[in-house]
Formats: sequence, structure tokens, C-alpha cells
Amino acid sequence: MKQTGRKIVKLASYAYSRWIDAAADAQPVASAIDGATVALASSSDVDFAAVAQHARQRGLPALRRLTFQGRAGLLKKLAQHLSDHKAALYDLSFQTGATKRDSAIDIDGGIGTLFAYAGLGRRELPDSNILLDGPLLPLSRQGSFVGRHIETPLDGIAIHVNAYNFPCWGMLEKLAPALLAGVPCIVKPATQTAYLTAAMVRLIVDSGLLPEGVLQLICGRLGDLLDHVTGQDLVSFTGSLETSLVLRNHPAVARNATRFVAERDSLNAAILGTDVAPGSPEFDIFIREVAREMTVKAGQKCTAVRRILVPAATIDAVSGALAEKLSRVVVGDPRVEGVTMGPLVGLDQREDVRRRIEALRAEADLVLGDIDNPAVKGADAARGGYLPPILLRARDPKQAAALHQVEAFGPVATLVAYDDVTDAVALSRRGEGSLVATAVTRDPEVAAELAFGLASYHGRLHLIDRDSAGESTGHGSPLPGLVHGGPGRAGGGEELGGIRGVHHYLQRTAVQGSPALLTRLAGHWNKGAPEVAENIHPFRRGFEALALGETIHTRPRTVTLADIEHFAHFTGDTFYAHMDEAAAKANPFFPGRVAHGYLILSFAAGLFVEPAPGPVLANYGLDSLRFLKPVSPDDTIAVRLTVKQKSPRNADYGEVRWDVEVTNQNGETVATYELLTLNALTERAA
Amino acid sequence: MKQTGRKIVKLASYAYSRWIDAAADAQPVASAIDGATVALASSSDVDFAAVAQHARQRGLPALRRLTFQGRAGLLKKLAQHLSDHKAALYDLSFQTGATKRDSAIDIDGGIGTLFAYAGLGRRELPDSNILLDGPLLPLSRQGSFVGRHIETPLDGIAIHVNAYNFPCWGMLEKLAPALLAGVPCIVKPATQTAYLTAAMVRLIVDSGLLPEGVLQLICGRLGDLLDHVTGQDLVSFTGSLETSLVLRNHPAVARNATRFVAERDSLNAAILGTDVAPGSPEFDIFIREVAREMTVKAGQKCTAVRRILVPAATIDAVSGALAEKLSRVVVGDPRVEGVTMGPLVGLDQREDVRRRIEALRAEADLVLGDIDNPAVKGADAARGGYLPPILLRARDPKQAAALHQVEAFGPVATLVAYDDVTDAVALSRRGEGSLVATAVTRDPEVAAELAFGLASYHGRLHLIDRDSAGESTGHGSPLPGLVHGGPGRAGGGEELGGIRGVHHYLQRTAVQGSPALLTRLAGHWNKGAPEVAENIHPFRRGFEALALGETIHTRPRTVTLADIEHFAHFTGDTFYAHMDEAAAKANPFFPGRVAHGYLILSFAAGLFVEPAPGPVLANYGLDSLRFLKPVSPDDTIAVRLTVKQKSPRNADYGEVRWDVEVTNQNGETVATYELLTLNALTERAA
Repeated sequence: MKQTGRKIVKLASYAYSRWIDAAADAQPVASAIDGATVALASSSDVDFAAVAQHARQRGLPALRRLTFQGRAGLLKKLAQHLSDHKAALYDLSFQTGATKRDSAIDIDGGIGTLFAYAGLGRRELPDSNILLDGPLLPLSRQGSFVGRHIETPLDGIAIHVNAYNFPCWGMLEKLAPALLAGVPCIVKPATQTAYLTAAMVRLIVDSGLLPEGVLQLICGRLGDLLDHVTGQDLVSFTGSLETSLVLRNHPAVARNATRFVAERDSLNAAILGTDVAPGSPEFDIFIREVAREMTVKAGQKCTAVRRILVPAATIDAVSGALAEKLSRVVVGDPRVEGVTMGPLVGLDQREDVRRRIEALRAEADLVLGDIDNPAVKGADAARGGYLPPILLRARDPKQAAALHQVEAFGPVATLVAYDDVTDAVALSRRGEGSLVATAVTRDPEVAAELAFGLASYHGRLHLIDRDSAGESTGHGSPLPGLVHGGPGRAGGGEELGGIRGVHHYLQRTAVQGSPALLTRLAGHWNKGAPEVAENIHPFRRGFEALALGETIHTRPRTVTLADIEHFAHFTGDTFYAHMDEAAAKANPFFPGRVAHGYLILSFAAGLFVEPAPGPVLANYGLDSLRFLKPVSPDDTIAVRLTVKQKSPRNADYGEVRWDVEVTNQNGETVATYELLTLNALTERAA
Repeated sequence: MKQTGRKIVKLASYAYSRWIDAAADAQPVASAIDGATVALASSSDVDFAAVAQHARQRGLPALRRLTFQGRAGLLKKLAQHLSDHKAALYDLSFQTGATKRDSAIDIDGGIGTLFAYAGLGRRELPDSNILLDGPLLPLSRQGSFVGRHIETPLDGIAIHVNAYNFPCWGMLEKLAPALLAGVPCIVKPATQTAYLTAAMVRLIVDSGLLPEGVLQLICGRLGDLLDHVTGQDLVSFTGSLETSLVLRNHPAVARNATRFVAERDSLNAAILGTDVAPGSPEFDIFIREVAREMTVKAGQKCTAVRRILVPAATIDAVSGALAEKLSRVVVGDPRVEGVTMGPLVGLDQREDVRRRIEALRAEADLVLGDIDNPAVKGADAARGGYLPPILLRARDPKQAAALHQVEAFGPVATLVAYDDVTDAVALSRRGEGSLVATAVTRDPEVAAELAFGLASYHGRLHLIDRDSAGESTGHGSPLPGLVHGGPGRAGGGEELGGIRGVHHYLQRTAVQGSPALLTRLAGHWNKGAPEVAENIHPFRRGFEALALGETIHTRPRTVTLADIEHFAHFTGDTFYAHMDEAAAKANPFFPGRVAHGYLILSFAAGLFVEPAPGPVLANYGLDSLRFLKPVSPDDTIAVRLTVKQKSPRNADYGEVRWDVEVTNQNGETVATYELLTLNALTERAA
């Protein structure tokens, strides 16, 4: 399938590991640039029940055979493959109306998201299919019955219904967390730009990297696919509020409580702080940010700025500066030199945006933009979806309603004057939930008040000033590590956010049972679970050999007053609690002079360390150290050291987490901590 | 309002801080014991728009004025008040059909949940309205732009639509996390037992503890309340699948993406392991657990056992033992001595259960139970909802379908034979998502296979054997610290789970900005944010005075080979990497002999500790210590110590978390950790 230039191709769906050509009833898909037919699309020949079955019977078991770590490796290879073959996609991307910069966000941004999830998976997820969630919970007095939460991959499939504006990123940002979780995907891109998604899917299929059934593609309509969902599946939608309701309320989705994630209408605000005066760096930052976030991707971004909230005193200055900046945008064929903004995806979309501008103009004046006769470079305005930046200004901000509700999905935004920070918060909230808001202010108090007032209405807040604007990733850019989504009108969904995005495809389960059983299930030993004794010191055993629960109890050692004095003078830590009996007694926590915490730690190490070379390569850290009871002079301490958790790292070594408990002569716990060592994989002789 | 005994009361709703009597169209609510009218209920006189408005305008600001800690304190007082006044509720509870044991689960279990959330809030939540979620995220090369996730209370209200079976616990288990989060609640109990909920609400109102608008009660129908929801609200439902769909698909809920949590039908399984033989402790445990979980609350529990999966080889033995055990259950008026199981909530409910038993009998034989003419102690079977335990046995387990779908909400369960563990998993999954499953097995491999196979279909797994059964809290008991809910048929909701339950009422927001700004917003300093220098050592300043970012840089200290040798012999830690140049060089991580990690820690303390008495009372712990670069003999270290986070603890002292970085003579970081101290609130002179 060649899809570059003007060649008209029949868009194939990729179903049950076959390419299924567009059916006889295929409809033309038009180029955004000139309206010429780029492709023909129809999914009428696709058997949707078979698609769902293929994902369940082939894709699901193949992914479940891998671990989180294994799937992270798969993502990395996939990202690398796409990165190596992305050039062809750029050519095709122009047809969607994207400039080269827009395409980079879509194509490289998407591939970058795959890379990011590969890295997150490798660093943060285990080499198994069970993820731990939170600590062990004691549920009984004697400790024979305990609980813990685990998360396991859904035994189901993901259906991703995507928007037209980011044909590549939109697919990959959903694919990455789903595949990492172990859930196969069926992707249905919006038909207007499905040819670009299809080209990327073909690259993926041709790579041979993904097992059969892991990825399927529907070009055209969704058919009866949703009739086949279960309670283990997930439907993720990006698009309009109206379509989201159809999917959300689909009888099978509702009855099976199928997980539903939506990202839909959002009237994102940019707010200029009350403290910012024209001429200040923050003023310029604001103008630059708003102009960019109105015009990137011709404003066809769910995160684009739609509402520009500025103090009443500053609105004329903002209006003037913004109009000046926007007037320099060059609209035209994105392939033509000098063009800085391409067309909307098509003529229908432009008509839709024009209708919405009309609705907005009922309460706002036009500041800038020739809606009906745009100047266009290198193209015919009548044949492509060309529209210049349109800047409006609300006549009566207190009364205006449409500007908070009508999303004109193009380079369109409305200026709104506000009185004070409280008013700015109230106006922002009238959007009833958005993906993102930007506030530009140099005053930390203004920023804090805006942030707390806006937070529960937003998935992301972008707060910039002269210190951070230079390195800011921008109002409009979702990042793999930050959540993307918003409450209310924005759909209530959440995507990305690092590993948070993976949790959507996992089921959390509370598991209750004996400590021994939970140790085995969770791969994590806790005090109370059986200790395993071997004839050899665990520091002498290779990574593979060590068993969870393997324990040594050291010989005792008495801590003398001389030790304390000596340690104090050696280290320089002459804190009075160690040195001065009367002062120590006056302290609410100490019975008199006590040993240094670090002395206890150091003596503990002296008790369990094996001097000769062996599998333990290094102590590289320590977590959750708590000193629970003071050690007084002449107390005798001893240590229990137990294998708590093992995490393979590479071919040479793995990480061992040890549960360490220091007790005194009365069996009381004086300190607990988790020790981290790197242990060689093969046993070394002493 | 007195509601004990047979006195018929008009059930009032508590709306906009007033008690609104049942309207003229009130319907009778019957006693489960004898069908006599206990109360009259109608909410027709309630103005639901005013209810929603009262919660938003009065309850919401009152809760938001408090912090998480403040609200935890409120919960504790409320729990104590209810505990002091609970006796009257027990009398009334009999009318719902509850035995004294059933009432304890409902009343004391509910109050215990309040206490548990009060404790969780105090221990785990901050003294502010911003909760941090995850670490600081670097988003830029130079570090001037960073991100972090926060969670803030929804700017909305909670509507809790509850089931009839636990009129007290059902209210309190939802109320506790919502109030802790800062969200006011409107509670609509099921009308059959609303009189008991109302009695508890009256205790709460009379306590005067809750600010106006924080809690409202609807006795009767929900009216048009859902028309008034927004995208900041949450609707939580417990009950049937059919009703859940009506609420979930309500136009305002769908359009506003109002959060919706459902707990609905669940065909919970109990599974006997393939390894368990009659006569073994596990066999007896299984019989006891299943019999109890069929009959507690007359089987009217969402978590009751409905499906009893046992190996084909053992099914006759299980059937016999279970029938014998169940035959000893005494059904009757719960106030009568010797009665061990009360009636269903009413005659309608009994009719409903009988119809469902008929559906089950199409594919199952009756093993035990006189469905139509139950023996009843101390009551008239025709006037109350009496039904004995009904044990069924599937005739053809492979073909049977109804047993996985039809929830007879009474003391009814079906025995099902399975072949092997794979078959047991497959049969369990046919329930399409349940709240809980129990597996009784002594074999850890069987337990692990069942657990992984069942996990994604369940909110909770209860795995018991002889080691844990004695202290088990039981198959049917949701616990405050463990999630309660299940996927698919069970509704996909999640409740409780400790602080997880609070998150439903919070919005997660990614915040991006400069390190300085995020430090201020999050109350958490990270490296890269500005350091604050004072003329006085921070260890000499009281808890209140310390500012986030307050920093000292210590003088340097050279670590000599003599120091290393000395420390080794003093502590006993003669690990070769410290002692033997050749062996250390052979280690992949060390350039030669290096200093002990604990020597670095100890010298670091020696550099920053202030010896004389002062505000720092104790170093009580340390987190996230990482040794990043080895320290070789004659390296010179120095320490940066910065105030990272402050957490008030009590009237005397607070916890200070310090960000500590040890660097070498080249400015390279050799170790980082977080130090924890307890600092007196008032400044002490040196």
C-alpha cells in the first residue's frame, strides 16, 4: 500500500492478522490541502465478532506469556523500528493539513511516548505479571492472617476510538500503556486521517515484532464491535461529547461495566495574572504562549487555548499585542515555504468551526480574522479547510455563556476580562472541567490561589513565569509522565501519567491469607512470614539461589559507653543525647545517654557483613530506616537479616532487598530498615 | 422521633438542615419479622434542587475550611458519639430481620469503619487540602521547569444510594471517605430499612458535630436529585444491576461525566482446593466458612457465597457435610433465644428469592431446604420473610448457566463440581466479575494458580488454610483497609481500601512550573528549588520558624585510609572493598578500596549535627538513602542539609524531613537521603 502524494488507495483494515480491503461501499477521504481524494475507506467487510475473538484468543495469551519487563522490551523495539522508518509518514502527514512542526508532534511525539513507556516499564515494573500496590496490611492480632493489594492484567481487550487530529500520537499514547499492561488493542482512528494511522500500523505489522492479535486496525466504522465487550475490556475514546455518550451508554458497555475512558470537549483557559503589566517578561510570555496554542495544528488540539482570561485593566493591551502577533501567521499549503499554519482537516470541519464562531459572536466581538475570505498562501481557499486565526472578545464577561461551552475546534479563542483572582477562578470553572489551564504570573500567592481554585476542574495546570517559561514544554503538550484528561465536560478520563496510565488496564485485588502464602504470591517477604534457614550465610549465595525469607540471626554485641564516646569523637557527632546524661534525660525521648543511630547501623553491618569476596557486590542504599527504641550504654544488640525481595537487573547482577531488624537483649526492636545490595547472578566462591 | 418497637412513625428526611416529614402520599414500611408497619415513608415534600444547593453552598465550604487532618478529627468525634449512643439502634435493627450478630456487623462494623478512617486520615494525610501524588518529575534539561501531581477535594457533592441490607454500615462506609476528602453527602437509604438509617442520622444531627449541609438524608424516592449533578460530583450506588443502569445512564450523570461508583450483582464463589480431602482441617474450614457465608444476614449480603466449587471427587462429601451443618440453622424471630438466622427483609424479597430459586432449579437439584413451608421459631412464616438455607447442586456443571448469572439474594447457594484447577478458574470467571472469592487449600501452588486466574475478575480474594483460618476475618467481610468492589457484573466500582477510598472524592492534577513555585504549592522542597540561607543553623530554629528550602552547607572533611581502617575494625565491617585494594579493584563498582557507606553517613552527621540542646529532639529515621559514587581514601566530603517537608505531629513537636546530599571535592554527589527529625514547636535556647 503506497499512500504518498495523490495516489488514491483503498484503505485496508487489519483484522484477524489479515489486511481487509475497503469494501465496495467505500467513501472517499479528502486531503485537507485541496480536497482531492487521498483514500477510500469502509470497514463493511470486517467481521467484528471475529476481531474481538482474535484479540482474546491470540493476542491476549501472547501478551500474558510475557512479563511487564518483557513487554517493556517489546515496546522499546517497536519504538526503535518506527523511529527508523518514520520518514515516509512525514510526506503523508501533509495531507492531513499538518505543517512539519505539527507532524513532529504527531509522529515523533508518538514514538517518543512509546520510548517513554518502554523506559518506565523497565525502571518501575516487575519481571512478573503481578504488581504490588501498597504495603502488607496486618489483619489479625497474632499475625496469621494478613492482606495486601495486587494488580494483575485484565483478561480482556482494549478498543481505542481516536480523534482525527493526531493520527499517530493518538494511537501510540494509548497503545503504549495497554501493551505494557498486557492487553491487546483494536484501534479505530477517525476516518478523516485514518490513512496516516494505517501507514504507521503497516510499519508495525511489517516489523513482525508484535505477536498475532495484539494489534488490529479498523478503518471506517466501528460496526457492532461494542456488542462484543465484556467486563474485562476497556473502551477509550477521544472526540466529541456527543459521540462519547453513544459509546458510554452502549448497552453492552453499561451492563458489563466495561471500563470507559473519555477525553472530549474542553474549553481550556489561559490566565494572565493580576500582577503582570504590559512590557514585563510575563506579558510577552503570555502573548507568545496564547498565540502558539491557538495556531499549532490550526487549533485542532483538545488542549488548545479557547478562553483568554485577562485582568480588565490589561485587556486592551493584551488584545492589541495578540492581534499583532496572530496577524503574522501565514496560512496555506503546509508544504509551501513560509507557511506557518496549515488548513483544518477538511471543508466540513471548517464549516463546523464557522458555525461555532457564529454562536460565539452572539456575545463576543471579532478582534481579528477574516472568517469568510482568508488569505491563503500556495493553495485555493475554496478547496481546503483554510481558516486564519480568529480572535474574539467577550462583550459582557459576566453574562457570556457560549464562550464557556462552545468549542470551536480551530484557531479560535475569546478574550475575557476578569476583575480579580476570585473572579478568574469562577470564570475558569464555568468551563465545567477542562484538560489544562495556563496561568502566567510572577506572584507566588496569585499562582497558589489560582492553582488551588482551578485544580479540581483540571487534569493539568501549567504555571509559568520568566524563570520557567524558557524550558516549559508548553500549555498544549501532554507528556508521557503527566496525566492527560480532565473532569466534567472534558470527559472525566485520565490517560498517560506514567505508570498511572498502565493501571487502567489492570485490576486491583485485595488478597487475604497467611503470611507464607502472601509472600509467595507477592514475591515479597514481611516479618511474620516463615524464615528460611540455610547452612550457608546468604551473602555467600548467588542471586538465583537466594530464597525469599532466607534469614540469618547474628551473634550479639554489647554497646558500651566507651563505644559511644569513641564514635562521637571519631565522627564529630557529639550531640548531647549521646554525651551528657542530664541533658539527655531532659529530652522527652531518651532515658539518659544513648547510642548514635548510625553507631547502631554500623555495628549491625559489622555483625552481618561477610568480609571475603562473594556474590554481594555492593550495598548501594537503604530505605525506611526507623529508630524505634533507644540503645543505652551496655545494651546488647543483635540483627536479623532476611531476603525480602529480588529484582533481576541485567545479565550480571540483580538487586536484593533485605529486611533488617536490630533487637536488644530484651528482644525489643530498636531499629528496622530495608537494605539494598547488588548481587552477582552466578555464585562466586569465597 | 421514636422508632422502637411497634410504634408507627412518619419517616422524616433531613434536608437543608431541617427534618421534612413524610408526605401525605407516604407508603408503609413493613417489619421483616411480622409484616407490621414500622414506618411511613415519602420524600415527595423534599425540594431536591434545594438539597443539592444546600450541600454546595453550606456543607462544601464548611468542609473545605478544614484540612484532611481537621476532618479526620471530626470523624473521630463522630465515631465516638455514635459508639456512645448505639444501644438504641440495636433494638430497632431487629425489625430489619437482623439477628444480634447481624446487627453488630451493621452497627458496630459501621462505627468501626468511621474510627478506621479517622485513624487513616490522622496517620496518612496532611494538615492541608493538597495531597501529593508521586515524586517531583524533571521536565527540562536545566531544571527550571518541573512537574508533580497533586490531589485536591472535588468542588462538589456526593450522592450515596444505598442497599437495604446494611442500613448503618452501608451509610458509614461511604460517608467516612467522602467526609475525610471534604465532600458533603446526601444519603438515600433503601426504603425497606430506612428507619434504621434515619435513627442513626438523627444521632449524628443531634450531636451537633457536623456543620450544616454536610449530611442530608432522603427517606423515600430520589426525586429529580440527579438532574442537579455536575462534573465535580460523585454518585455511589449499591444495589441491583437494573437500578445501577438507570442511575449510570441518567442524562446529567452521563453528560457531566459525573463520577459513578457501583456495587451490584455478584455471584461470589467459594472454591475447595483439589488437594483437600474429607477429614482434613481445610475440609472442615470450608464447610464452616460456606455455611456461615450462606446464612449471615440470611444471605442478604453482596458478598455471600452463591457458588460452591468443589472437585468432582469430593462433591458428595461436601454436599453431605454442608447439608448437615445447614440443617442445624434455626430460622425465626431474631429476638427469640436460640434463633440463628432471621427473616429476609420482607415478603416481596422472599418472593423474589423464590422465583430465582426456581430459575436455578432448572439446572440444579435441591439438596436441602423446604422452600415453601419453612420451619420457623417464634414467628408466623406467612407474615415475615422467613426462608431456610437452600442448598442446590448443579446437574451438569459444564452446561449450567443460570448459576453464574442469577443472584438469589437470600440463604441460597449452588454446589458445582469441577475437574481441575483450570476448570475451577474457568467456572469462577463465568460469574463475569465478583466482589470476592474464597479458596481453601493447603497447597501453595494451587493457591497461586487460583489467585492469578481469579484476580482480575475479583476485588478481593480470600485464601485460607489451617494456618490462617483461625484469625481470618471471613469471606464476607469488607474491611476498611481493603478494597471492596468488583469488575463486570459486580459493577466495576471500588470502595474502601484505606486511603484509596478517599481518592474517589479527589481530583488528580498535574502541575507544571518552576521548582520554587512547586515547592510552595506542594509544601515539599526538591533539589533545584531555591535554597534559603539564614544566619543561624537550622537545628537551632524551632519547628514553626523553619522555612522550606532552609539550607546549610557544612565545612568539608577528608576521609583518610586510616579512617576507613579504623572504622572497619571498630565496627567489625571488614568487607573486602574497604580492606583489600586488589579485591576491591576486581569488583565491578569500585576503583579500589573505598569508604564504608555508614562511615560517610556518620561523618556527614558529624558535620551537620549541633551538639548543644536545641529544638531538634531526635533523629528518628532516614529514607531513600542511595550511595551514588564511591568515596576513595583522601576524598573530601561536605554536606548540604535542607528543610524538605514539615508535618505537625502534636502540641509539642513536629516532624521535619531534611533533604541531605553528600558531595566530594569535585562537586559530585556521593550520597543522597532524607533525614527525619522530631523538632520542638517552640524554640529552645542553646
